[in-house]
Amino acid sequence: MTLPTTMKAMVQLHSGYADSHTGPNLSDLSPYLALRDIALPVPAAGQALIKVHLAAVNPSDIHFIKGEYGQPRVHGMPAGFEAVGEVVAGETPLLGQRVSFYATGSGTWAEYAMTDLQGLVPCRPDLAETDAAGQVVNPLTAIAMFDIVKAAGADSFVLNAAGSQLCKLLIALGRDHGIKPIAVVRRAAQADMLRALGAAEVIVSSDDDALTQAQAAFDRYKPRILLDAVGDQFTADLFFAMPNHARWVNYGKLSTQAPKLTNLGQMIFRNKQIEGFWLTRWLKQTDRDRVTQAFMEIQERFVTGKWTTDVAGVVPLSQAMAELPGVLAKPDGKAFIDPRS
Amino acid sequence: MTLPTTMKAMVQLHSGYADSHTGPNLSDLSPYLALRDIALPVPAAGQALIKVHLAAVNPSDIHFIKGEYGQPRVHGMPAGFEAVGEVVAGETPLLGQRVSFYATGSGTWAEYAMTDLQGLVPCRPDLAETDAAGQVVNPLTAIAMFDIVKAAGADSFVLNAAGSQLCKLLIALGRDHGIKPIAVVRRAAQADMLRALGAAEVIVSSDDDALTQAQAAFDRYKPRILLDAVGDQFTADLFFAMPNHARWVNYGKLSTQAPKLTNLGQMIFRNKQIEGFWLTRWLKQTDRDRVTQAFMEIQERFVTGKWTTDVAGVVPLSQAMAELPGVLAKPDGKAFIDPRS
Repeated sequence: MTLPTTMKAMVQLHSGYADSHTGPNLSDLSPYLALRDIALPVPAAGQALIKVHLAAVNPSDIHFIKGEYGQPRVHGMPAGFEAVGEVVAGETPLLGQRVSFYATGSGTWAEYAMTDLQGLVPCRPDLAETDAAGQVVNPLTAIAMFDIVKAAGADSFVLNAAGSQLCKLLIALGRDHGIKPIAVVRRAAQADMLRALGAAEVIVSSDDDALTQAQAAFDRYKPRILLDAVGDQFTADLFFAMPNHARWVNYGKLSTQAPKLTNLGQMIFRNKQIEGFWLTRWLKQTDRDRVTQAFMEIQERFVTGKWTTDVAGVVPLSQAMAELPGVLAKPDGKAFIDPRS
Repeated sequence: MTLPTTMKAMVQLHSGYADSHTGPNLSDLSPYLALRDIALPVPAAGQALIKVHLAAVNPSDIHFIKGEYGQPRVHGMPAGFEAVGEVVAGETPLLGQRVSFYATGSGTWAEYAMTDLQGLVPCRPDLAETDAAGQVVNPLTAIAMFDIVKAAGADSFVLNAAGSQLCKLLIALGRDHGIKPIAVVRRAAQADMLRALGAAEVIVSSDDDALTQAQAAFDRYKPRILLDAVGDQFTADLFFAMPNHARWVNYGKLSTQAPKLTNLGQMIFRNKQIEGFWLTRWLKQTDRDRVTQAFMEIQERFVTGKWTTDVAGVVPLSQAMAELPGVLAKPDGKAFIDPRS
């Protein structure tokens, strides 16, 4: 295959971190990104170049391009964390094959992207492109955090922002393993969908008696793990309403509130704990066999319909600057960028 | 020995918990306790009755009688968690011997107290009464929390309310094990004493640039554990200023503030964690041999002068209602109650 010397990519306009955090809402990409023609990245030893078929857009991408994520932006580098594509360069037997990957070195919102060789995930032929494009960030996070839920040994767990793509995967895992999900959402409109998916209880946080409802559900189901993507005061209130030994596992920050620890004594007398989950750290700490097994489970779940990817829209790379915010504004489903159209 | 049928005791006037928390300050005991003649407690199987020689007064006692501790008050029961005395009843080879103990069943601010047989700690003859009276709550907590510090593997740790009796024990442990204590205090007057004891740095929290000073100390010494008895906003600020992998271990609540988590993302990206320490849980989870070994170490440290008990005052049980608040108001040292005078 003859590779071009340049490619189209949505590149970062800033370096480092933002001074203030405004959350993953985004109505205009132009303060952060620009569509540019840039030099094709050249893989070093241990890296692979992938021709991108379809790139995913996750909340962490939005946090990242706004300078609110845990790693610094690099001016001029393409944005985008994950995608599916074909390996076109690199010292790997996967050359020419379809792979999912999490980009390192050069981002996925581009015609070509790079990652480390050990980060290439071969895809089953029967795995749909929209499932393959988003196989790492949400599905692997769901599997990894559900390991925490299983290890805690309780018959129930709590998750907020429960209408997210990630939480739908977690609710389905709970349903299939008999560990009852207590789902917390902002909008009542999502409640029926989440119950149908497998949520044992749905708490609508805007209800006046939301905390009372949650307390009743916690007393009944005795959850020990709170998987939190919000980090607001209501999350703290939920945590303090949970039974002894509860762990607040924060993995995202949709709210800009700084929650107050109104009952710190529970850490002492009720053995509660606050911690974080980051997929990057989990991957470093986790046995390679567990990761391989997780990707086999992920693909099996998608192919057999135990998991589904809700698609809000696919925008061409050439139109993404203008069209992506409109797709992100849809209440449900995931956005994708197609660099080939 | 012929035992009396009644005894003098400072008994609780309330049951359960208080509705609001005002911290361990106490200028008047009469809303909470009364000196009464009550029936001598009778040990059941597995319990021992101890004639109290000297009872200790700890911050946790004050929290407890005010209804702010992690276990409910019982109306009519004697207060007081720990003491030294002579075993006068119970199925134990320690009958007639001097023991330190943490009371269960009937409190220590009384002529007689009770505990479980496995809670009896024999005392070396050369251990002073004031050391023996306070051998459990502070010294065992110091040993147990210092195990956490050692296990974290860093060369330094942070502790606030560092002028407390407990923290003096911890600072001496740090000094003797080459793990540098960074001591946080409210009053500048304590700084020299803590430096002389072994603190590598002393941060006075009322200084305008206290957080900047702390940041410089953290950058230099890289502590991973924050042992916190305060739980205020400055504690949270210290935690967020600490290096990656920092753990905020809360074991007390001198402040009534509800600290804000201003940088929750550090839980995710910097692997930080908030947890609690409670001696009661540690004792349940810890191997009996480790506990026995800890008490041998505790007595050895007191007898050889590696630890000292600073005595603020000893009040007779008969005068404690009136005199104890005055002793507690002293800036340094520990208060004791003597039921034999």
